[in-house]
Amino acid sequence: MNRLKKKWQKKLEKIIKDDKRILTDSADLLSYGFDGSFGQYKPERVVQPVNREEVAAVMKLANKYSIPVYPRGQATCLSGGPLPVKGGIVLDTCHMTGQLSIDSENLTAVVSPGILTSKIKEAAEEKGFFYPPDPSSAHVSTIGGNVAENSGGPRGLKYGVTGNYVLGLEVVTPEGEIIYTGGQTIKNVTGYNLTQLLVGSEGTLGVITEITLRLVPKPKKRVSILSVFDDLVDSGRAISGVLSAGIMPSAMEIIDKHCINAVENYKPAGYPTDAAAIILIELDGHPKAIEEESVQVTDICKELGARTVQSAVDEEDQKSLWEARKLVSPAIAKIKPTKISEDATVPRSKIPEMFERLNKIREKYNIELVVFGHAGDGNLHPNILTDKRDTEEMKCVELAVSEIFEAAIDLGGTLSGEHGIGTMKTPFMEKELGSAGLEMMKRVKESWDPNNIMNPGKIFPEKGQTKLVLTE
Amino acid sequence: MNRLKKKWQKKLEKIIKDDKRILTDSADLLSYGFDGSFGQYKPERVVQPVNREEVAAVMKLANKYSIPVYPRGQATCLSGGPLPVKGGIVLDTCHMTGQLSIDSENLTAVVSPGILTSKIKEAAEEKGFFYPPDPSSAHVSTIGGNVAENSGGPRGLKYGVTGNYVLGLEVVTPEGEIIYTGGQTIKNVTGYNLTQLLVGSEGTLGVITEITLRLVPKPKKRVSILSVFDDLVDSGRAISGVLSAGIMPSAMEIIDKHCINAVENYKPAGYPTDAAAIILIELDGHPKAIEEESVQVTDICKELGARTVQSAVDEEDQKSLWEARKLVSPAIAKIKPTKISEDATVPRSKIPEMFERLNKIREKYNIELVVFGHAGDGNLHPNILTDKRDTEEMKCVELAVSEIFEAAIDLGGTLSGEHGIGTMKTPFMEKELGSAGLEMMKRVKESWDPNNIMNPGKIFPEKGQTKLVLTE
Repeated sequence: MNRLKKKWQKKLEKIIKDDKRILTDSADLLSYGFDGSFGQYKPERVVQPVNREEVAAVMKLANKYSIPVYPRGQATCLSGGPLPVKGGIVLDTCHMTGQLSIDSENLTAVVSPGILTSKIKEAAEEKGFFYPPDPSSAHVSTIGGNVAENSGGPRGLKYGVTGNYVLGLEVVTPEGEIIYTGGQTIKNVTGYNLTQLLVGSEGTLGVITEITLRLVPKPKKRVSILSVFDDLVDSGRAISGVLSAGIMPSAMEIIDKHCINAVENYKPAGYPTDAAAIILIELDGHPKAIEEESVQVTDICKELGARTVQSAVDEEDQKSLWEARKLVSPAIAKIKPTKISEDATVPRSKIPEMFERLNKIREKYNIELVVFGHAGDGNLHPNILTDKRDTEEMKCVELAVSEIFEAAIDLGGTLSGEHGIGTMKTPFMEKELGSAGLEMMKRVKESWDPNNIMNPGKIFPEKGQTKLVLTE
Repeated sequence: MNRLKKKWQKKLEKIIKDDKRILTDSADLLSYGFDGSFGQYKPERVVQPVNREEVAAVMKLANKYSIPVYPRGQATCLSGGPLPVKGGIVLDTCHMTGQLSIDSENLTAVVSPGILTSKIKEAAEEKGFFYPPDPSSAHVSTIGGNVAENSGGPRGLKYGVTGNYVLGLEVVTPEGEIIYTGGQTIKNVTGYNLTQLLVGSEGTLGVITEITLRLVPKPKKRVSILSVFDDLVDSGRAISGVLSAGIMPSAMEIIDKHCINAVENYKPAGYPTDAAAIILIELDGHPKAIEEESVQVTDICKELGARTVQSAVDEEDQKSLWEARKLVSPAIAKIKPTKISEDATVPRSKIPEMFERLNKIREKYNIELVVFGHAGDGNLHPNILTDKRDTEEMKCVELAVSEIFEAAIDLGGTLSGEHGIGTMKTPFMEKELGSAGLEMMKRVKESWDPNNIMNPGKIFPEKGQTKLVLTE
């Protein structure tokens, strides 16, 4: 360790005075070196600030000594966002939990970044409100992480994603200044929309220290409908059919036969193992509207070839339908030791074509590729099940994943619908954005973070990084 | 004219070969020198490109010779956005009208910037869809201008503003590169959200040459309800009452007694001239839900002191109610020759307090100050009626407008809800954003437009510009 380094580490101890909140032990450091994606790194320090002032002081210090800082929530990230790829400091925001207040008059919430998203949902519901974004990780992930990654979930179609509910932010800049963006009002055109620039910027432009969220009135009623199809193409037509009828479901999920079987092997939910696909639809809104729409949805699905259509009105019955959906991810993780979860997103009308492309990729590389996801908004989750110790197969997986990205871009879609770019998708950025588009993004980064200390190695490809590498 | 200037003007003629699309005549130049706000300027050239390539070539040329360029739609802007304050080139996008296509499968529209917003609404409705943003100028303003200014309107409360419907953009950068941001999908987290950075950037970061919009299914039914109040505070409580009941109207407008009287003097609509305020509410959605909610809204308004509550179900009746609302702006413009229209926005719960502050300002400066606006989302329109030739009174108006801005910021609101900063509100930017916040905005501008040629003089205060000056 050189002398300069020692200096910043000593100074760090003056900022975070409680030594329990600076981790230096090797085991501790390693436990902050991974997320839900690939790779294992070791930072030099982990700090756990409890307020904006500590965050600002850490950033000022890091900027002065050019030490990389990686903000991190619960690290459920699937794209490598919080990975400390270049050493330095992991800034754990999970201890910033002081604020969770619901403003019933203005239908807003002000929250600290370390609050779990599910806690916000609960607090809102208690007062008769609804916070719609529902990433599958909501019960373990923090709102700070959700905002940094612009997390999605099944409700994107009708309600949008996390960013659609962020009205304002308090942020510490890479140089340690505290700034406020947006505010408490739905309408705000005072200068550039820095709020939405920061949402989804994956911690590369600053550390989020407080968030103002918009809430909506709680829907009066929900109904869930399960449709079983013997043909994948029919299920795709049913999705279009429902939307063309002017119905806007609050969620519309598709689960393919591979995933159905995985769930039934893992924890039987009563899904038909011989079906080609299942569509799970949630309708919400006024009871009378829902009643009528659920009849319409049932009719449309039957007309378009559904083998069975079953609807659940009772809250418990609905819950169990959706619990089975939430089991898909853990269930498929049991098939093989390594699960690579993608989130390539295409315009909704291209879903059948995307399915065909995925079939071809599965055959070409002879890999275990299963698909589920948010069919209503075109956000599919192709998952490849493999074993990262099998370097031979991993080479095929790398090529397959690259082809998935290319297929999404070819079909007018995007590399990432809700997981972010992180470390994994950086080589494909230029293909989607073009060199001029990527250059304009980079200019923002460079102007905000001239020393490149704020979560370096994310979003932007490193020099010479032209293809996906999953083997370590 | 120096030789250098002559050179760029000659080169411009090689880019826009049709000489009818380069205006040089003094009268023409002057007619492109104003908008819906204050001030009159004279550009050196007006160009009317018809495609992205011409725009890119104009920008490359302007960047090379450091000539300011001001993108402009129909110039209905109320904050000075398109004003050619530093000479140079006005880039009129009204001739870029080639594209207006609705994608029924994906519920999207791709449009050229010169298309009138009302045309998009109509095209969407023909296919059973709905484009919700509805600035009062929709029948004369272009979508390019709406996107650049992030235009609002009455439907912000339930549906959000223009930006909430922009999925992707084609943009020519200040240096003449063509870039694409976002795309066709609702979910897109591929790098920074440049789309929302550009929306509302008032033409200071680039020229918008194509827009991909999100549409929603057309609501099955609408009902409008007019409630008359003898007390302004009661009307404020009624607004809160409706929202607290879990009802989300598609619009909720307030019109004060001064505006009521102006409308009745201008073109009688049958509004009660002795009322303190009128609330106009629109509900939309499923017929059965609307039926029930309109009874609820009527009951709530009556309980909270409404003198009368009248609802209109018939489309024609609804139209006439809303036409009267749209007359407010032209009606009050008849009171005195100069109308200064503000859009200070506060958290909804602060509306009664904002009304009090406005009353005090009216008395203090003895000015004609009337108020109407989008009560549901806290976006009020205090309008000052004056005569700009009366320099004595204009000094009072300047102070009064400044105090309106300060009141909005004090109450946790924002300088501008939907009109933009333009030239008028620049001196107040630092007060709302702080110096660090403003600095981070400026860094984006400087990194994208190093020669400061893209709509200079807007959003950011000039050196030493610390107060509002309306007198010329």
